[in-house]
Amino acid sequence: VNVELVSIGAELLLGYTIDTNAAHFAREAAAHGIRVVRRATVDDGAEEIAGAVREALERTGGVITSGGLGPTADDLTKPAIAALFGRAMIFDEAIWESLRARWKARGWPGEIPEANRTQAMVPEGAAILENRHGSAAGIWLEDAQGRWVAMLPGVPREFKGMTADVLIPRLAARVAASGANPAVVRSLTLRTTGIAESALADALGTLAKEPHGVRLAYLPGWEGVDLRLTAVEMPAAEAASRLSKAESALREVVGKWIYGTNDAELSELILTELRGRAMRIAVAESCTGGMLGMRLTAIPGSSDVVQGGTIAYDNVVKVRELGVRDETLMAHGAVSEETAREMAAGVRTRFGVDVGVSITGVAGPGGGTPEKPVGTFCVAVDVRGAVQSLRTAGVGDRHEIRQRATQAALNLLRRSLVG
Amino acid sequence: VNVELVSIGAELLLGYTIDTNAAHFAREAAAHGIRVVRRATVDDGAEEIAGAVREALERTGGVITSGGLGPTADDLTKPAIAALFGRAMIFDEAIWESLRARWKARGWPGEIPEANRTQAMVPEGAAILENRHGSAAGIWLEDAQGRWVAMLPGVPREFKGMTADVLIPRLAARVAASGANPAVVRSLTLRTTGIAESALADALGTLAKEPHGVRLAYLPGWEGVDLRLTAVEMPAAEAASRLSKAESALREVVGKWIYGTNDAELSELILTELRGRAMRIAVAESCTGGMLGMRLTAIPGSSDVVQGGTIAYDNVVKVRELGVRDETLMAHGAVSEETAREMAAGVRTRFGVDVGVSITGVAGPGGGTPEKPVGTFCVAVDVRGAVQSLRTAGVGDRHEIRQRATQAALNLLRRSLVG
Repeated sequence: VNVELVSIGAELLLGYTIDTNAAHFAREAAAHGIRVVRRATVDDGAEEIAGAVREALERTGGVITSGGLGPTADDLTKPAIAALFGRAMIFDEAIWESLRARWKARGWPGEIPEANRTQAMVPEGAAILENRHGSAAGIWLEDAQGRWVAMLPGVPREFKGMTADVLIPRLAARVAASGANPAVVRSLTLRTTGIAESALADALGTLAKEPHGVRLAYLPGWEGVDLRLTAVEMPAAEAASRLSKAESALREVVGKWIYGTNDAELSELILTELRGRAMRIAVAESCTGGMLGMRLTAIPGSSDVVQGGTIAYDNVVKVRELGVRDETLMAHGAVSEETAREMAAGVRTRFGVDVGVSITGVAGPGGGTPEKPVGTFCVAVDVRGAVQSLRTAGVGDRHEIRQRATQAALNLLRRSLVG
Repeated sequence: VNVELVSIGAELLLGYTIDTNAAHFAREAAAHGIRVVRRATVDDGAEEIAGAVREALERTGGVITSGGLGPTADDLTKPAIAALFGRAMIFDEAIWESLRARWKARGWPGEIPEANRTQAMVPEGAAILENRHGSAAGIWLEDAQGRWVAMLPGVPREFKGMTADVLIPRLAARVAASGANPAVVRSLTLRTTGIAESALADALGTLAKEPHGVRLAYLPGWEGVDLRLTAVEMPAAEAASRLSKAESALREVVGKWIYGTNDAELSELILTELRGRAMRIAVAESCTGGMLGMRLTAIPGSSDVVQGGTIAYDNVVKVRELGVRDETLMAHGAVSEETAREMAAGVRTRFGVDVGVSITGVAGPGGGTPEKPVGTFCVAVDVRGAVQSLRTAGVGDRHEIRQRATQAALNLLRRSLVG
């Protein structure tokens, strides 16, 4: 099943809004063998909408539109496409009643404003696509030749919600009804950290090409290098089997750098590990200024594991609050494994917890030296007195270097917990 | 001048990559009276590229493509469009030499791999658009009727760099040469915080509609409500004059909530204010877990102002490290203005600085009560012993609530510094 997408809106064309709907739909659809073969973005005028939809119908026969379903004069998607299909616009009593109920439920004092009546107008013969995420109902319009347009609202939360609730099930049912065993696109991401892209490729050797017939993409970022496996254009059962085999093959070689799959978050894994051991944690941060604490406490329910921490941005704080020795600072400098180790041990003792984690580094853009250039950072962990540390270097701007340092600290802790 | 954009790439169509190039170009272009009237996204096959470019040339006569200029077999933009123009592909010695120099400068040991020769192939009669940001040269191809295609690489850093360096100047020169005084789109954003969207609209009254003939959009987010003024379709001088008048009119009414324009960052403004007063700051954070410290230290050069802070996630830390009294916690709870005030005063004294700032709240999703529902937070500042505090409520998920609390703390500090 091939489809085209038409995104509608002046703000999109002017570049004030980034279109994330189209990419979202494409990913969801591909997993069900529905393929987006072209996308267009047009202004919200009736002529522009009708032109783009007409061309897409002629080429592909199935079109999804996003936007232009609101109650204002700019919202012309429905009448423009109704005219294209030669259908009149009629008033839908059920939609109007649900709009009235919606306004009442939201505490609107009087009757719903008449301007909203346009939202209850639909093309003759259209099917209504229920919108549980907002006020604009979706529309499905189909002609005698089976060419169709699905009109969805442009608000991302509504578009994405309706894609899951209504659109994918409807399209998947068409695929199933056709009796075809469609070629799908499915992917699986293995998240690695603590190893460079080139080192991963070297370690994978011949596996790096097309393990078990699936594509392998390296996606480097501050969290590490994600390995995205994509099974392209094959039946769903075969895609699942090949992805699973490729995952096993990769894990055998680079498993120790893999901390999770797909959306796994390292800080969440660490909280789970600590919770399982009934351990509490405190952080000591210099160059990251609170980023590590922020990441750990970003996870709901972190309070049973996280005690708190010290932001030791100035060296005075490292000495007074964390007990870093003046001699250590003099001999090795603030950015050193020695200082990081004393910070981790210091915060663990001071906060009376099981685990201390520390970060100190040169985030830049200033402050670099030949021995310790911008991007240099040291991290340390103290798990009940067993201290480990690491010195490394990150690339990128100040923000990215701080993110990399935070990830390195979490990864050092992961490895000292799970080996 | 009207143009169309064609974004090329399988990853874009599959939804694995979000297209930010198109929006970036549209914004930059509109400021010079160049209007994007349609965008398309197509697969990287030669037929798909040629089809989309042909249609766009017929409609609009000017096309910018993004992507498909690399050295691999997937990169077909140049030959596909050359064929459309009836031009042969020829080898460009100058591009080849610059590629060789580039590989050498990057430390490649031997000769540049032959596979890169495709990057030196260009359509006959094309102009080369210099790329200072990567290895793929851009191409400008124009026919006898003045219809043209500009081909740029898809890597966002390269596309955006070349838009600024090469493409906008070239298009602006065409506009200027035409002798027209083109209609432009220009915008100016006034950043407010600490006031709700509806309260802003009420305060603005009749100004809320179209102040001095420019559009006003309300863009609410966790940082506050941005007021975006956009002058649409008028000569540049008139746009500048109307924007300036509208800005003055808005400042007169809601100026005290405006903390900056366009990309202004509240934490950066605060550091400047503190630096000017030779004041140092320390933070005390409960529910935000380090986010406030992270924001203040995100600004390069923050070390002359930021001392550090305490992440007091557990109540024990509030008492032991910050001197919050047990009675205060018992009587008012951890999420209270009383506790926030003692945290701010405590961290200021403990760290020996001029300013203490604190945050305590219920970030959710658990932990809410009828008196203190999820989203409730209290912030306090202590400036050399003068303490102010605020209790308020934020909407959104855990992350957004924490962001709003951080912004509220910074804004309370801004107001106690600048009045």
